[in-house]
Amino acid sequence: MAPVAELICVGTELLLGDILNSNAQFLAKELAKLGIAHYYQSVVGDNPDRIQQVVRTACDRASLLIFTGGLGPTPDDLTHATLADCFGVPLVEHPEILADIAQKFAQRGRTMTPNNHKQALLPQGAQVLTNSGGSAPGIIWQPRPNVTILTFPGVPTEVKYMWQEVAIPYLKSQGWAQNTVYSRVLRFWGISESSLADKVGNWFDSINPTVAPYANLGEVKLRISAFADSEASAQQMIAPVEATLRQVGGIDCYGADEDTLAIAVGRLLQKTGSTLSVAESCTGGSLGGMLTAVSGSSAYFWGGIISYDNSVKTGLLGVDPHVLATHGAVSHEVAKQMAAGVRDRLNTTWGLSITGIAGPTGDTDDKPVGLVYIGLAGRDRVESFEHRFGALRGRDWVRHLSCCTALDHLRRRLLKAEM
Amino acid sequence: MAPVAELICVGTELLLGDILNSNAQFLAKELAKLGIAHYYQSVVGDNPDRIQQVVRTACDRASLLIFTGGLGPTPDDLTHATLADCFGVPLVEHPEILADIAQKFAQRGRTMTPNNHKQALLPQGAQVLTNSGGSAPGIIWQPRPNVTILTFPGVPTEVKYMWQEVAIPYLKSQGWAQNTVYSRVLRFWGISESSLADKVGNWFDSINPTVAPYANLGEVKLRISAFADSEASAQQMIAPVEATLRQVGGIDCYGADEDTLAIAVGRLLQKTGSTLSVAESCTGGSLGGMLTAVSGSSAYFWGGIISYDNSVKTGLLGVDPHVLATHGAVSHEVAKQMAAGVRDRLNTTWGLSITGIAGPTGDTDDKPVGLVYIGLAGRDRVESFEHRFGALRGRDWVRHLSCCTALDHLRRRLLKAEM
Repeated sequence: MAPVAELICVGTELLLGDILNSNAQFLAKELAKLGIAHYYQSVVGDNPDRIQQVVRTACDRASLLIFTGGLGPTPDDLTHATLADCFGVPLVEHPEILADIAQKFAQRGRTMTPNNHKQALLPQGAQVLTNSGGSAPGIIWQPRPNVTILTFPGVPTEVKYMWQEVAIPYLKSQGWAQNTVYSRVLRFWGISESSLADKVGNWFDSINPTVAPYANLGEVKLRISAFADSEASAQQMIAPVEATLRQVGGIDCYGADEDTLAIAVGRLLQKTGSTLSVAESCTGGSLGGMLTAVSGSSAYFWGGIISYDNSVKTGLLGVDPHVLATHGAVSHEVAKQMAAGVRDRLNTTWGLSITGIAGPTGDTDDKPVGLVYIGLAGRDRVESFEHRFGALRGRDWVRHLSCCTALDHLRRRLLKAEM
Repeated sequence: MAPVAELICVGTELLLGDILNSNAQFLAKELAKLGIAHYYQSVVGDNPDRIQQVVRTACDRASLLIFTGGLGPTPDDLTHATLADCFGVPLVEHPEILADIAQKFAQRGRTMTPNNHKQALLPQGAQVLTNSGGSAPGIIWQPRPNVTILTFPGVPTEVKYMWQEVAIPYLKSQGWAQNTVYSRVLRFWGISESSLADKVGNWFDSINPTVAPYANLGEVKLRISAFADSEASAQQMIAPVEATLRQVGGIDCYGADEDTLAIAVGRLLQKTGSTLSVAESCTGGSLGGMLTAVSGSSAYFWGGIISYDNSVKTGLLGVDPHVLATHGAVSHEVAKQMAAGVRDRLNTTWGLSITGIAGPTGDTDDKPVGLVYIGLAGRDRVESFEHRFGALRGRDWVRHLSCCTALDHLRRRLLKAEM
């Protein structure tokens, strides 16, 4: 029978609000995917008595205790020592962990320090939950019948890796992941949450699969979730709903699940056998950064020019100094010349440019913070688009929206070219 | 005497991992600022029995219970009804709340629905905690001596507004916010958490201020926190500890609080009156993105060339095709030529370059994933540095570490130039 899980996140930094508890969200989502019920989450500081109290409460209402945090090398990292105390067993040193830590330090040209020895001490009887990405291993431990403990470090990337590589196979081997909640997320750009809700709101009452909308950083998502006895049957339940929602969503739906606008654009560039270069002013390289975050992007992305200073716009991109002086760097004309300039200089099919006022300073009477021009040069046509993203949400927001919107213009242009 | 607080976040969406619990971080930070201790946080679903269990546990160990979530109009919003049950009082309808909700709906051209009536039902004896931004009000309630309850909705913007406008004045009026915990975070690059702990570990036993280490994404931080009767006196307690830790930390300490490596580098460039350009291969513009995330960076950052494809390295950066063919794109030689090339073409004091194998593909027998060369060209000298970041933590990690490490090389060089 599947156990009831409980999450226990250890760390005074969580109680002080220094960090966001993203591990809790990740693990909650993963438990839901595996169909393992979980009714409570606790956060507790680096204090052995309080950790013990949380463990006692959790043992009364759950059988699978999942910990994050408190596995580091410093004295305030107490999770394993406290668990050993809780269940009355000593800590045992694992030489293979020490050897592994020493090797990892050597790879990065560093020397292990004495306090790393602590990380090789695990409660007697506990198995090592390997952490190939970091120094601190976790444990898989059944200290008594009906209590299974998994521990992870606090570093989110390590938690994700260890969960996928070790915890999921372990949970499946125990027969604890027999039902599943499987979700698919459809991603939209260029439509507001309320407009999308107007179009597809009749689906929000659906019971299984459920459909729910989310909005974040200019993007809108629809999550379709099905509860079933296997991933395959959940997928079968989701498929027709997804097809309908995609049809209703139309061109605004750019992808699903882990897709990004950069991935969607990359797919279309490869399909059409075309290449891309970018010219960036206010985004300073972030658009190139998004495009190259995609593994394999070298097949269609050749590079770009970051023309933050106007001398780079004229010197390297060939923007006409007279046009720059007349219209200003933030204008339709300069956006077009930047896009055409980078396309010609890098010899790509497409040139995509961004010039704007990211703020909080740099605005003028007629050019407010958030005003951004996007240029798009194809083989035979150069277009430009004006956007007003506003000043209220700050510099990062304007830059992020500029990059996404530029990618979305190219995406729509590539889709049209396809038709 | 100040109470001990406990956070209770209600919502099945938190248990499903649909949303990140940003309310917990916000409230934790606020409690710390007010000097109100808080040792536990709980998350529980929209289930009356389980909410009651959490309330009972919390009453045993805290005297100020702060709830978020479960105040909406739908049947799964149960917080107020469950609290009334818990303390054995009926719900009472507040006509002024109903009138307020009706008015808010009218303002947006909407009509109140019958389910909004539910939001006007509060436990008998509870005061209204006004929510001027949304429909759901919270409560301030002392159901029995030594227990005070504050409730907030789940929407983060509403929580923030209600906290500032109503909760803080209330807590101060009770004399519960007379102390403060003030923290300062020192930031380090180029040293491991355990090595830093070796140097400053004697401080980890300090009681007030406390000193604690954190590590994240290649960076190590030391948080110095002081508990005092005012921010000013906390700052006075922190200042000498900070000075000592900075001295012991030496050149590895690059800044404090909201500083980034890009901000630290920008400060040094401005101080030395020098300018910077970048040439990026595997990071594809992300280094430029980090530099221009800093408002005012146009004073010293002129731009760069994203030479993702080799044709851009030779064509735009002037890398010698023979050197490229002999040593490969990922080499000391190419890194140096990229850095010198971008410095010359953009006419800046410094040129900084990155070329490497971000993975997961693209490696060869002698050049593994994670191998990265950083080039740094100054007025009279061109250096390069080899790093091996490994393949285990993935593409994003290699790219992030490459950018940070490049900035750190420039930072150390600028500090040397200064001396």
